[in-house]
Amino acid sequence: MKTVFSPVELKHAPKNEIADGQLRPAVEIPSRAEIVLRTVQERALGEVVEPLDFGSQPLHRIHAADYLAFMESFWDRWIAEGRTAEEAFPYVWPIRSLRADPVPEHIDGLLGRYSMDAGTPIGPFTFEAAKASANAALTAAQLVKDGGEGSAFALCRPPGHHCGKDFFGGYCFLNNAAIAAQWLLDQGAHRIAILDVDYHHGNGTQAIFYDRPDVLFLSLHADPRHEYPHFLGHEDETGEKAGTGFTRNWPLPLGTGWETYSEALEEACRWLHVYKPDYLLVSLGMDCYREDPISKFRFNSEDFTSLGQRLKRLGLPIVFLMEGGYAVDALGTNCVNVLDGFKRA
Amino acid sequence: MKTVFSPVELKHAPKNEIADGQLRPAVEIPSRAEIVLRTVQERALGEVVEPLDFGSQPLHRIHAADYLAFMESFWDRWIAEGRTAEEAFPYVWPIRSLRADPVPEHIDGLLGRYSMDAGTPIGPFTFEAAKASANAALTAAQLVKDGGEGSAFALCRPPGHHCGKDFFGGYCFLNNAAIAAQWLLDQGAHRIAILDVDYHHGNGTQAIFYDRPDVLFLSLHADPRHEYPHFLGHEDETGEKAGTGFTRNWPLPLGTGWETYSEALEEACRWLHVYKPDYLLVSLGMDCYREDPISKFRFNSEDFTSLGQRLKRLGLPIVFLMEGGYAVDALGTNCVNVLDGFKRA
Ligand SMILES: [Zn+2]
Ligand SMILES: [Zn+2]
Repeated sequence: MKTVFSPVELKHAPKNEIADGQLRPAVEIPSRAEIVLRTVQERALGEVVEPLDFGSQPLHRIHAADYLAFMESFWDRWIAEGRTAEEAFPYVWPIRSLRADPVPEHIDGLLGRYSMDAGTPIGPFTFEAAKASANAALTAAQLVKDGGEGSAFALCRPPGHHCGKDFFGGYCFLNNAAIAAQWLLDQGAHRIAILDVDYHHGNGTQAIFYDRPDVLFLSLHADPRHEYPHFLGHEDETGEKAGTGFTRNWPLPLGTGWETYSEALEEACRWLHVYKPDYLLVSLGMDCYREDPISKFRFNSEDFTSLGQRLKRLGLPIVFLMEGGYAVDALGTNCVNVLDGFKRA
Repeated sequence: MKTVFSPVELKHAPKNEIADGQLRPAVEIPSRAEIVLRTVQERALGEVVEPLDFGSQPLHRIHAADYLAFMESFWDRWIAEGRTAEEAFPYVWPIRSLRADPVPEHIDGLLGRYSMDAGTPIGPFTFEAAKASANAALTAAQLVKDGGEGSAFALCRPPGHHCGKDFFGGYCFLNNAAIAAQWLLDQGAHRIAILDVDYHHGNGTQAIFYDRPDVLFLSLHADPRHEYPHFLGHEDETGEKAGTGFTRNWPLPLGTGWETYSEALEEACRWLHVYKPDYLLVSLGMDCYREDPISKFRFNSEDFTSLGQRLKRLGLPIVFLMEGGYAVDALGTNCVNVLDGFKRA
């Protein structure tokens, strides 16, 4: 299985995040990608290739033009405003009774207008890295579509699944899975499924396709009543309008281990059998791991192998896209366990 | 003119706030109330009285029961969860495409569910102080209604006008002006006007009464395109449903001085003449002052006297309620200038 990765993805290097009312060392850091890359190479998963540049058009198919313009111009504006902080955090949001439009002109208003949390810093190279990450997703999709590969691994960083049509958050700036799904549809595919196995609900991906039947979104994750992102990912969310029935969530209790998880996974697999997608995209987070510093599931490293093996039995063309996972030391092992489990099954 | 103040209001003592992605020393601090109290006494504005306790019923007339239960129980939960931070900040919000309901059970989910910004810390005595502040507002209203006083000053702290039906933010936890307005209506008044002269738009007050004709909301403030709260306070917001026409905003450019401001104030006074309220509540912020550390208008201290003089000419029973103003050294002078200007005009 080929891995797609660009060193440009490492240029997004957050220093801190805001959590519990404190500045804490960031957990979504470049070494996450580095250790996965190293493990891919050590375990000889397959060739590592650099992404092609797909330009901005595939980003515009998912994200609002004003959001992309904001991301593109943000850091220059931050500097032009004389801000000295080495990374930017939003601090006020247009929640209920407040208006997202008209879009503010003030830079802190813009930050809040286009975000969902206070834990996702933007630095000078954030958007450059996010675009490289999206190109990795697109290139992996192209390898599966045109390259005669039954599967490919997009080593994406920053991740994507919390990012919505017009907001960043949850360490995500471009929705890599959504961008790749739409690109495959635009290339002629009829039905795409996205299976999100990150510990956190993929709220951005769900919202982007919520009213559409051409993308089936399935997510297994910690119950949002007890875990970030807190405000989406409930069982009663099943799509709307033409998309009714094409979203499925399995919110699972804190402390879930592989045994319980795999039962929900079997259900998700039955949905995939019924839907018969042309391609399956897997939003692959490794934060279900028992040692993950911000998560509360109980996967062992071997459970990730089982996950890969189970996905192989679907018999679908698959694009794996990296999402979260913050136990950096074990991240390479856990990630490559999925991919190698898949490859060897 | 009597002043209503409780020392309990001082118990909310924030240490930091989050702005520009940094923890900064809080600006909404107890000494704000202390200097105003001292100046009221030095300049012999009138008797200072302690608020009566109106209980929780008047709070329930404005705020959602679940929000009040959250505020009441929050700090005990924070401690029970083993949190060690000495004040709590939210960090994720239910913006568009995310759901405010179901309400999360996780304490950080709750914080985000019930707030609008990351700059408003909750500490152990925050809600106790907020209730004392609301009681000060209610007591001042009662002095004007029953006490034979044509005017009274509620020395409220924390302030209230950013706080909505079910969210805190902008240093505000209970909407003192809204609570006092509703109480006056419940006591038999037919029409209340709220004039908000704080530098920032009173988004909470506006939203609470947006569909009602029995409370006229008028606000002069810095244009939200360029200033906090960024997401409400535009000129095109004029009320909805039965409240259509009963909200008026004058968003003013950064750098506005008294000359420009007073033209907008004249317009607001014309609305008050037409509406003929039984009582006028003035949300009195002093952050239009040229030296205010977080604001960008250009009032001199004498302009606050002019403001008080102009309000006297309305000939209405008035309850003044303190809102913002962060140039602490001048806050007492500027505040009492309004009140003394009113009293002596
Ligand atoms: Zn995650
Ligand atoms: Zn203010």
